[in-house]
Amino acid sequence: MQDFIAAAEAAADAAGAVIRPLFRSRLLVEAKGDNSPVTEADKEAERTIRALLAERFPTHGLLGEEFGTERGDAEYVWVIDPIDGTRAFVTGRPMFGTLIGLLHHGRPVLGLMDQPVTGERWIGVPGQGLTFRGPLGGEAGTRPCASLAEAELSCTSPYMFTDDEAPRFARVRDAARRVTWGGDCFGFGLLALGLVDVVVESDLKTWDWAPIAPIVEAAGGRMTDWDGNPLRVGCPGQVIAVGDAALLPGIMALLRD
Amino acid sequence: MQDFIAAAEAAADAAGAVIRPLFRSRLLVEAKGDNSPVTEADKEAERTIRALLAERFPTHGLLGEEFGTERGDAEYVWVIDPIDGTRAFVTGRPMFGTLIGLLHHGRPVLGLMDQPVTGERWIGVPGQGLTFRGPLGGEAGTRPCASLAEAELSCTSPYMFTDDEAPRFARVRDAARRVTWGGDCFGFGLLALGLVDVVVESDLKTWDWAPIAPIVEAAGGRMTDWDGNPLRVGCPGQVIAVGDAALLPGIMALLRD
Repeated sequence: MQDFIAAAEAAADAAGAVIRPLFRSRLLVEAKGDNSPVTEADKEAERTIRALLAERFPTHGLLGEEFGTERGDAEYVWVIDPIDGTRAFVTGRPMFGTLIGLLHHGRPVLGLMDQPVTGERWIGVPGQGLTFRGPLGGEAGTRPCASLAEAELSCTSPYMFTDDEAPRFARVRDAARRVTWGGDCFGFGLLALGLVDVVVESDLKTWDWAPIAPIVEAAGGRMTDWDGNPLRVGCPGQVIAVGDAALLPGIMALLRD
Repeated sequence: MQDFIAAAEAAADAAGAVIRPLFRSRLLVEAKGDNSPVTEADKEAERTIRALLAERFPTHGLLGEEFGTERGDAEYVWVIDPIDGTRAFVTGRPMFGTLIGLLHHGRPVLGLMDQPVTGERWIGVPGQGLTFRGPLGGEAGTRPCASLAEAELSCTSPYMFTDDEAPRFARVRDAARRVTWGGDCFGFGLLALGLVDVVVESDLKTWDWAPIAPIVEAAGGRMTDWDGNPLRVGCPGQVIAVGDAALLPGIMALLRD
């Protein structure tokens, strides 16, 4: 596992060097209405990550947002989202992340989330705990939360849900103490620091959740689909993350159709 | 004006020293469901700002979120929001701000927005331009944006609008290129860096908009109420900010009842 962690860190370092110069740059300001510099940075960062991982682990698979899947049936498959939170990145919010996860026989065993601008990094290995580093403070570990009425809920956008899902999510929102919008991967990262209690989202792709689930689990939380099952490659991406597992049954009941 | 700017900077420095230790602290993690440490930091920061400004400018008025108005009919009135973006602060997002503004005969003539954790600071004086400093990059100045269809829209929450306002805002949202949720004062700060084109919000208090309007105007943008009029103490806080003034008439038309 130490080799895997070292490779993920090296890949995140290399991706950060690609992404960082574009953040809040003139190029981005002038390219308003045209995504090309962001798309280019996204692609270049993923190429960089893939090249590094493929060189160290030539038999491993790769699954990324920009360049699809290679060797998807390998024992180990790396899952890559070079810039999770494109809206945050494009609008200059330091609340996006580079996500690198590792699946073993389809089960997430390692997750890394990196914020290349602030220098924050989460590395989670279920059973071995969460490592968190960064200059803005915060300590690894979820916090107890006895009831949804006391819970801080985080969700990227109220418009991420289908017409069928929206009223189900609204029941959770109404029952929670407070909701903070925006965040993408950051909502999960803050849950892993005990600052958010619940994240409920939908339509997440494998590269959105696979690197995150080990971080949440390693921090002491739980991450499942809306029915309480483990997330799987190809699932519809309906996600619940809780810092305190006791919240899970109540949230599942509210999300039930 | 240089004395006013120096005082606002000193007050923001002092407030930051109060606020910074609480960000992502154990105290905050453990106080979930109980706002008291945040309320205390909010009050202590405002007390600190008020004391400093009152000492330097004993004839000036003070208007703050936590301690109300003193000498509200003075020629100069300082407007203070020690922590704008409480949800962001409580959940560990470095997207809140300390706001300090100065009204002259009710007209905003100076605005300061400080992010005490990242060390970003905006200082705007209409007619004299915007100063922006910070380690995360970005350059002062709004960008051109010819049409709402190309515009990045920012809004703190879709639930900040009344039943009457919500469908009017929804027309702007539907016409914009993309919307990013969350942000509070940060949406305006990013507009002043040319990374966001439009912010539409409602129910803003004097301490939310008075320190921000000079930043937007100094950056080359416009900030008005939903009818295009200048914001005034006691107004309902329906706010439009645009980086490119050409967007204003179209947005006003969509917001019309």
